[in-house]
Amino acid sequence: QGILERLDAGEIVIGDGGFVFALEKRGYVKAGPWTPEATVEHPEAVRQLHREFLRAGSNVLQTFTFYASEDKLENRGNYVAEKISCQKVNEAACDIAREVANEGDALVAGGVSQTPSYLSCKDKTEVKAVFKKQLEVFMKKNVDFLIAEYFEHVEEAVWAVEVLKESGKPVAATMCIGPEGDMHGVSPGQCAVQLVKAGASIVGVNCHFDPETCLETVRLMKEGLQAAKLKAHLMCQPLAFHTPDCGKQGFIDLPEFPFGLEPRIATRWDIQTYARKAYDLGIRYIGGCCGFEPYHIRAIAEELAPERGFLPEASEKHGSWGDSLSMHTKPWVRARARKEYWENLKPASGRPYCPCMSKPDGWGVTKGAKELMQQKEATTEQQLKELFQKKK
Amino acid sequence: QGILERLDAGEIVIGDGGFVFALEKRGYVKAGPWTPEATVEHPEAVRQLHREFLRAGSNVLQTFTFYASEDKLENRGNYVAEKISCQKVNEAACDIAREVANEGDALVAGGVSQTPSYLSCKDKTEVKAVFKKQLEVFMKKNVDFLIAEYFEHVEEAVWAVEVLKESGKPVAATMCIGPEGDMHGVSPGQCAVQLVKAGASIVGVNCHFDPETCLETVRLMKEGLQAAKLKAHLMCQPLAFHTPDCGKQGFIDLPEFPFGLEPRIATRWDIQTYARKAYDLGIRYIGGCCGFEPYHIRAIAEELAPERGFLPEASEKHGSWGDSLSMHTKPWVRARARKEYWENLKPASGRPYCPCMSKPDGWGVTKGAKELMQQKEATTEQQLKELFQKKK
Amino acid sequence: QGILERLDAGEIVIGDGGFVFALEKRGYVKAGPWTPEATVEHPEAVRQLHREFLRAGSNVLQTFTFYASEDKLENRGNYVAEKISCQKVNEAACDIAREVANEGDALVAGGVSQTPSYLSCKDKTEVKAVFKKQLEVFMKKNVDFLIAEYFEHVEEAVWAVEVLKESGKPVAATMCIGPEGDMHGVSPGQCAVQLVKAGASIVGVNCHFDPETCLETVRLMKEGLQAAKLKAHLMCQPLAFHTPDCGKQGFIDLPEFPFGLEPRIATRWDIQTYARKAYDLGIRYIGGCCGFEPYHIRAIAEELAPERGFLPEASEKHGSWGDSLSMHTKPWVRARARKEYWENLKPASGRPYCPCMSKPDGWGVTKGAKELMQQKEATTEQQLKELFQKKK
Amino acid sequence: QGILERLDAGEIVIGDGGFVFALEKRGYVKAGPWTPEATVEHPEAVRQLHREFLRAGSNVLQTFTFYASEDKLENRGNYVAEKISCQKVNEAACDIAREVANEGDALVAGGVSQTPSYLSCKDKTEVKAVFKKQLEVFMKKNVDFLIAEYFEHVEEAVWAVEVLKESGKPVAATMCIGPEGDMHGVSPGQCAVQLVKAGASIVGVNCHFDPETCLETVRLMKEGLQAAKLKAHLMCQPLAFHTPDCGKQGFIDLPEFPFGLEPRIATRWDIQTYARKAYDLGIRYIGGCCGFEPYHIRAIAEELAPERGFLPEASEKHGSWGDSLSMHTKPWVRARARKEYWENLKPASGRPYCPCMSKPDGWGVTKGAKELMQQKEATTEQQLKELFQKKK
Repeated sequence: QGILERLDAGEIVIGDGGFVFALEKRGYVKAGPWTPEATVEHPEAVRQLHREFLRAGSNVLQTFTFYASEDKLENRGNYVAEKISCQKVNEAACDIAREVANEGDALVAGGVSQTPSYLSCKDKTEVKAVFKKQLEVFMKKNVDFLIAEYFEHVEEAVWAVEVLKESGKPVAATMCIGPEGDMHGVSPGQCAVQLVKAGASIVGVNCHFDPETCLETVRLMKEGLQAAKLKAHLMCQPLAFHTPDCGKQGFIDLPEFPFGLEPRIATRWDIQTYARKAYDLGIRYIGGCCGFEPYHIRAIAEELAPERGFLPEASEKHGSWGDSLSMHTKPWVRARARKEYWENLKPASGRPYCPCMSKPDGWGVTKGAKELMQQKEATTEQQLKELFQKKK
Repeated sequence: QGILERLDAGEIVIGDGGFVFALEKRGYVKAGPWTPEATVEHPEAVRQLHREFLRAGSNVLQTFTFYASEDKLENRGNYVAEKISCQKVNEAACDIAREVANEGDALVAGGVSQTPSYLSCKDKTEVKAVFKKQLEVFMKKNVDFLIAEYFEHVEEAVWAVEVLKESGKPVAATMCIGPEGDMHGVSPGQCAVQLVKAGASIVGVNCHFDPETCLETVRLMKEGLQAAKLKAHLMCQPLAFHTPDCGKQGFIDLPEFPFGLEPRIATRWDIQTYARKAYDLGIRYIGGCCGFEPYHIRAIAEELAPERGFLPEASEKHGSWGDSLSMHTKPWVRARARKEYWENLKPASGRPYCPCMSKPDGWGVTKGAKELMQQKEATTEQQLKELFQKKK
Repeated sequence: QGILERLDAGEIVIGDGGFVFALEKRGYVKAGPWTPEATVEHPEAVRQLHREFLRAGSNVLQTFTFYASEDKLENRGNYVAEKISCQKVNEAACDIAREVANEGDALVAGGVSQTPSYLSCKDKTEVKAVFKKQLEVFMKKNVDFLIAEYFEHVEEAVWAVEVLKESGKPVAATMCIGPEGDMHGVSPGQCAVQLVKAGASIVGVNCHFDPETCLETVRLMKEGLQAAKLKAHLMCQPLAFHTPDCGKQGFIDLPEFPFGLEPRIATRWDIQTYARKAYDLGIRYIGGCCGFEPYHIRAIAEELAPERGFLPEASEKHGSWGDSLSMHTKPWVRARARKEYWENLKPASGRPYCPCMSKPDGWGVTKGAKELMQQKEATTEQQLKELFQKKK
Repeated sequence: QGILERLDAGEIVIGDGGFVFALEKRGYVKAGPWTPEATVEHPEAVRQLHREFLRAGSNVLQTFTFYASEDKLENRGNYVAEKISCQKVNEAACDIAREVANEGDALVAGGVSQTPSYLSCKDKTEVKAVFKKQLEVFMKKNVDFLIAEYFEHVEEAVWAVEVLKESGKPVAATMCIGPEGDMHGVSPGQCAVQLVKAGASIVGVNCHFDPETCLETVRLMKEGLQAAKLKAHLMCQPLAFHTPDCGKQGFIDLPEFPFGLEPRIATRWDIQTYARKAYDLGIRYIGGCCGFEPYHIRAIAEELAPERGFLPEASEKHGSWGDSLSMHTKPWVRARARKEYWENLKPASGRPYCPCMSKPDGWGVTKGAKELMQQKEATTEQQLKELFQKKK
């Protein structure tokens, strides 16, 4: 059954987690470029990660083609041996995903994401050509459906959907925006409307923000669609990092990005809460993005097991709400084998010299404005010192 | 070259990371039992993790035989199909480790750890028989050397070393203790002395405490050996979790163990600091335990690259101190491509409702003592209320 | 010169700080009732606090008549000897304030605040009668102007302004609301408009929220007045507690209210920032409420000294931005005698087991709703356990 | 009854709180010099603070003569009009304390503290002359007993005790040290022994550390005295700030000292815990130092009311464990009117950008050592960059 048949029938579809972050930690992706040449260089590592997500409950395996557009690979990936062509990376990604999908009952989704071309030229034809090149591979390899994901500008996302839609396959589209909307100030509701009008059957958000924020953005998309009397399935693939302190552009502006995000990693219980809230909001395509490891995906599958009627394979190595601890030798560890314990735990960071929140960089204060402020402060401070001096 | 030749020649030997925690997150190990039947059930997952550590710079691949003693498997692992015998688990572990080690230049170490038998009977002959059974497999599979690790009682560790020593192969021994010593109050210095006298050529600590605490424990071991005029190589394989709030028995007593430890995960920069301090302390076998992912091991290899003269394979996907960010599109992210930035960053947790420290469970307040205290408080509180009443 | 002459001339008027909190800590006010019988019982304590605010720079001394309406004193103050009449409390408050005001150049403001009568009956005549009774004393004692403060409902605040306005004296009106508006959902802008239309010459907020939140509320009031083309002076008297985690009803709902607020107390530097922002927003009546001690008021006066051209008396015991530390014996303490140091300091709480934020109580979850939720959870958890059981 | 009669009879004696910090916030003392010229300049402010402590339960009123030695006043106090002589400051302090003590049943204690002379010359005769000058005033004004407090060097404290002892009046001696001992490394136990041998009848600590740390120091003093078979009463007057992160020299080295300590201020409940622990340790002279406001002293008196059989005057404005909240209009605030609530509350700081702990300044890293370290790092970093470069 295809993605739309499943969703139309009311099924919950579980997505997969974040490849670039997981494979960066495993040693196969370089932070900064974030390009997926590992599909050619180290297929066994990519295959293993797909397998883990499948086992954890993913119903969709996304081809590892993030930032695998030709312009991006040339731009960022030039540290890679030139011999690895864009086509090879995309083909290998499809082959690996299909191989693992066939080990279970998963669908393969070919994915495109935002391009450097859009930012540098904004020429519709040129940008569409980039997406077409990737689409050709997806068609040749016959993926099950397509995802346009990680777009900050709805205009570019719409172009991507238009290209993908030509294939005749179902198209999902997710933007990496928060409740404030896209980088031109288009609201989440308006973004959703434009994407559906362009042909997307599934819309939502991925990346850049934590689960709570992403759910709020999808809620606004849902409202926008209802107001416009449009129908679409909803999808959510957030970060597995707590980012209540994000600015408009999300976690990239946080000072911890990308090498100091560890204290923000979500627990499995945080993800269960997310899965439940997503379900209650009417979202039926529920997955994750950067930071989501296989055990986070399993947490979604376990939280929604009552609705779905089955558990994922990987639950054979997990108990409901920690009940595998009930055999521990220490009585106080056995006492943790219950839902209330983990639900109420406020986990400590073990970092007494660190704050809870950060101020994001890049809030648009121009250097000129800053200098002006400093000058003004200096003046009043100088005046003040003089007053104090005079007083004495 | 064998482990002792390397260490005797002054080489730095880099260990590997923690299998049970990493594979629990990947879906192949069950928290609670923590047994390694995955070597038989899912060899590809175990093989892939070995490969990642090898690629990250590990010079030693430990067989995934933690808690693979017969008594433990029976005790904790009985949820596993009975048909997987202790022998099969251990043999498969050896085969996988050797296969991957041959892909590079690594040694294979067979490992034993503390047994339920010790706690239940403390009979020397019986406990030794358990170790012997595992040793037979290690001899048959011809591992390069042996490690007795994760012992809370030096008495049992000594028995393990005595058994392993019969093989003629080099033996390393590490205890999971902190600066306060073993569970009978034997000091780290005394533990080290007893282990060396029993035949260990390499001694140190693993697991249970964060890098800082483990280094302090090894320092005490070093002092103890010096005072006793004994020679041995030093070894350290700590947690990759910040645990300044641990009690005597380490992170197991922390309320976050094992499903809420995320905010405590060390960054790669924390691990570089650890590697440098370990080196400066004279430790030459430097690795990790629970929480150590491949990128943490790579951080050790990168920090000590100037001393060793080479980088690990996985550094092709990493830059020194974040310099791969220098190509980022946002200028404020490019500004993070330098050592001072990451060294001085105090990473936020994004968890404003959570504390920094926890009070460990299991601090040994008897129920009787607690009730007595409560009773006393009630009395004085009652008296106090009456006084307030009278006043009014 | 009267209050309006000063404000009309563009002067900055500095208010005083919070009496009930300061005198509670000094032992003269009871938390809970918060009534001001100390004006009769311990006039010397009230007088001293007035003196300290005057010396710190206050241009207005408010009579200590908070919650001194007859209905409140009967209701909450009945633990006080019955013999202290409402009239006596109010008269003594006026006498003390005038005595101290005459020691300097300050104005005396008579103040009324919200009444229990409004909540219990909402009868306009009855509520107005309560305010009239207090006004009679203020007229007899000839205070310089009047303040209606600490109102959660704009309707009652309007009634108070109407009563006070009959006196012919200038009237200021401040509500204890946040940006979400009053308890009936009237926006700050609308509240301001209604108060000005009722006769208030000065409008703003006091209490319940931290400086940052109060400034935002006043900003909304300013916008509302501009939209309605009304003119009034703006006034702000916030808490000296950090309360970013407040709900709609402010700090009373925080779990720390009122006996655990210490870690939230603002530093003098926080208050300097507040004073500057208030000034930049066009507010010219700048003071404080609960938590403001004399040194906080001094911080306002010092921050705005360049604009005003003089320092308060109490600055003889203070240096600009800590420069009195320049004579300290330790060089690292001397290094703190500068603006950058204190401006950038992120003060630690010394409380590693405490969080940074609290969840306010009283968020309106009915007990029924809670039980329903728990029941639902129990069901799905039960189902989940069964699934896990079946799997095994 | 004198101080020794009370203590010998087993009575609990409650001290007072910290004058310099409280009066700095009220506007009468300058941080940095910290000298007590307010006794002459603003006697009404000093008198009022004494009154508040008396009312809160203090059995001893210390003359406000901290840093009132002639050498200190000349050294630090020279910003004060030269006409205020050391003698005048000390005499006024005695007069005010006596006046307020006579309003109740309190004793007056004349106090001396460490001198600049000791640090600059260490000449015994010269230092003793400084103490003698203050003692002459105390004798003329006939204080009830004497306290030598705030000494970092036991040698100087012993000299002070020797001088004070000549008066024939009882002498108490407290040092501002932590468990690591005085600035020359003399242990708390040894310090106590030397002070008792010099003639002190009461020994202990004051200032520099939080209650928990001070209690540990007094515990060590008690052990030292027991080992030496000496008898003395124990005394404790700690900070009302949480300082778990202090170094050897206490809170002065914390980056927050003295203008950013607010988030560390102890709640009344923290102080009740302290009072109980002090009592259980056998301490019978229990008071406070910097940060202790009248309500903190009241908390001591209320905690120990069951043992003493009475409450202080100021308890008429307080309820046991918050029970004055039982009349609040909001049910969730009423729910806070109980001991368990306040005992278990972990108060939030409302400061999500601030850490919980600070690293103290002044840890004795020489500039040379620091530069050496940096040079070394630079080298290895340079080498590392080259290795990465080579790899690519």
